[in-house]
Amino acid sequence: MNQHELYMRKALDLAQKAKGLTSPNPTVGAVLVKNNTIISEGFHKASGKDHAEIMALKNAPESLEGALLYSTLEPCSIQGKTPACVHALIESGIKEVIIGSRDQNPRVNGNGIAFLKNHGISVTEDVLKDECTKLNEDFFTYITEHRPFVNLKVAATLDGKIADEKKHSKWITSEKARDHVQKLRKEADALITGIGTILTDDPQLNIRNHLGAHNKKYRIVVLDSQLRIPLTAHIFTYNAPSSICIFTTNKKDTDKEKMLLLRGVHVITLDDEITLSHVLETLGAMEVMNVLVEGGQVVTSTFLREKLVDKIYLFYGNKILGGKESLSFAEHIGINSLDAALTLDKMEIKQFDDTILIEGYLKNVYGAH
Amino acid sequence: MNQHELYMRKALDLAQKAKGLTSPNPTVGAVLVKNNTIISEGFHKASGKDHAEIMALKNAPESLEGALLYSTLEPCSIQGKTPACVHALIESGIKEVIIGSRDQNPRVNGNGIAFLKNHGISVTEDVLKDECTKLNEDFFTYITEHRPFVNLKVAATLDGKIADEKKHSKWITSEKARDHVQKLRKEADALITGIGTILTDDPQLNIRNHLGAHNKKYRIVVLDSQLRIPLTAHIFTYNAPSSICIFTTNKKDTDKEKMLLLRGVHVITLDDEITLSHVLETLGAMEVMNVLVEGGQVVTSTFLREKLVDKIYLFYGNKILGGKESLSFAEHIGINSLDAALTLDKMEIKQFDDTILIEGYLKNVYGAH
Repeated sequence: MNQHELYMRKALDLAQKAKGLTSPNPTVGAVLVKNNTIISEGFHKASGKDHAEIMALKNAPESLEGALLYSTLEPCSIQGKTPACVHALIESGIKEVIIGSRDQNPRVNGNGIAFLKNHGISVTEDVLKDECTKLNEDFFTYITEHRPFVNLKVAATLDGKIADEKKHSKWITSEKARDHVQKLRKEADALITGIGTILTDDPQLNIRNHLGAHNKKYRIVVLDSQLRIPLTAHIFTYNAPSSICIFTTNKKDTDKEKMLLLRGVHVITLDDEITLSHVLETLGAMEVMNVLVEGGQVVTSTFLREKLVDKIYLFYGNKILGGKESLSFAEHIGINSLDAALTLDKMEIKQFDDTILIEGYLKNVYGAH
Repeated sequence: MNQHELYMRKALDLAQKAKGLTSPNPTVGAVLVKNNTIISEGFHKASGKDHAEIMALKNAPESLEGALLYSTLEPCSIQGKTPACVHALIESGIKEVIIGSRDQNPRVNGNGIAFLKNHGISVTEDVLKDECTKLNEDFFTYITEHRPFVNLKVAATLDGKIADEKKHSKWITSEKARDHVQKLRKEADALITGIGTILTDDPQLNIRNHLGAHNKKYRIVVLDSQLRIPLTAHIFTYNAPSSICIFTTNKKDTDKEKMLLLRGVHVITLDDEITLSHVLETLGAMEVMNVLVEGGQVVTSTFLREKLVDKIYLFYGNKILGGKESLSFAEHIGINSLDAALTLDKMEIKQFDDTILIEGYLKNVYGAH
């Protein structure tokens, strides 16, 4: 690893500290280097707080004449909740900025770099580019497509079943795998599930051991066209009402709606039916930058069938179940032949005790990577 | 790794050269060490040939006074096609024998060791025991249970489908994965498939690039209760008739049988139906030490349902297929609830381009490990 990569790796590690907490802003880390020594560090902690570069500048103990700034993301050239970073960088006296990835925000995308260059600062791009781009894959999707990046989680047996014929699914995967799902929830702005899962499993859907993330935005989204959700459902016990958002239709139980609204639960009524693209569009407008879908057969298959999944997490528990009436995760995705099957890109494999996780990006879908 | 393990590793590497060629004998490697130097090596090449220890003794260039013999398997104490090894070892002058695993053959199992000790040779056991035991898991099953060790291969999509609704399965897995299946065939004494696979796919089922293994015993076993197999099937083009063995029943087409027998194909008639345990028992009597099952939904499910699988190789191609009418590999295994699901032991994961292999031993089955 060369010097540039070494310092960029440090900046990536810093950024990672706030992954899942910066929404709807990107996740960014930065280090200032002078005489081959890191003299200051910064990362963006949350929307409205200092950007990573500014935090690094503020933390610097000495003059920055001749210093290098490493930033995982192109410094911003726009005034948002905080002033544009490029001005502060120019005033600081640094001589060079090393960048991991461009900011795909159309209002920035290259403008920050051009501004710095026009003011006599050298710019080096694309250091650990892939990792830095991946760090903000959700933000880039959100800012360019105005909808959340969609992660789909599936917990299946080795033969692709997500529940037995009695709809039991506890537990297909190992405890360590379920812990990892908690980490995925921590990185998500919202969890989406269907009313079927609420009625069958009555899950809590909260983020457990949720220490040190007071500014975490986390919504629970339930798709429930008739408002069949019981008022006693566990999600109401384990989560603040204001974090729960139920999408319904004009077939809804209006008495139930009144009670939910009284409690402070959000109820959003679409037209005759719940269209997933409409749900995602609405969530995008609510500044939800990424979602984790944890549904049953209907929700999972529908997201896949409508090609609305960016990234899939396939957890395989150590079980072969079989059964004609057990539930497969992909049964209704509307594909008839092998040639038309969905495929994953950039596949990675992880293991959590005897549960195996295969993750990857879905090819040929709307967030095609 | 200590000295013992270093030399045993070498003996294991030697044994591996003849894996799949020694049937119905175990696979064994041996090295002779004197003054901390390997002075001779041996491995068992095929049934009827010298045992590994004898080959090492014969290859030794000098006196063996004070030498150590490393053998992956306990030396035999019985006269078989060749004389018992323990006599030669005692006469050789070696001072110590280091053994990987005991020979589970009830006629040996500890007797070889006792004989050596009684004649003043020190014996150290259990060096790299797990690997040495695994090396002969097939032989140990065969010699104690008089039936072949059963390997089951499945090539499935990520949602557990082995063919689409038109029964197409070419190709679910990557070319590299299919190459690995060739390696599995090379290590097998027999491949078992069903008439359904012959009729649908008309596969060749030969071992490709089959160089340097002239003494390889390899049978193709077809389960075909009515002898529906076409005389033009590819297996007859790509394999010697004498290596093909068809199990059938008294519902067989007797004209077809006559033509098959004329060609030199083996036809074995069971009673009213083909019972897998009966097939395995018959193959055991034919000195088939291990089999690789490569069938379609019926054969695969039946082996799993009847709990006749020792080890499973689950290849997952990079495809999500879905579909109510596509074929799942475990559909008919007769399990209704998650609690009763089959599980794998000693799971290992391998990757062949974008195909993932999960292999493991089936728990709670007849060859339970």
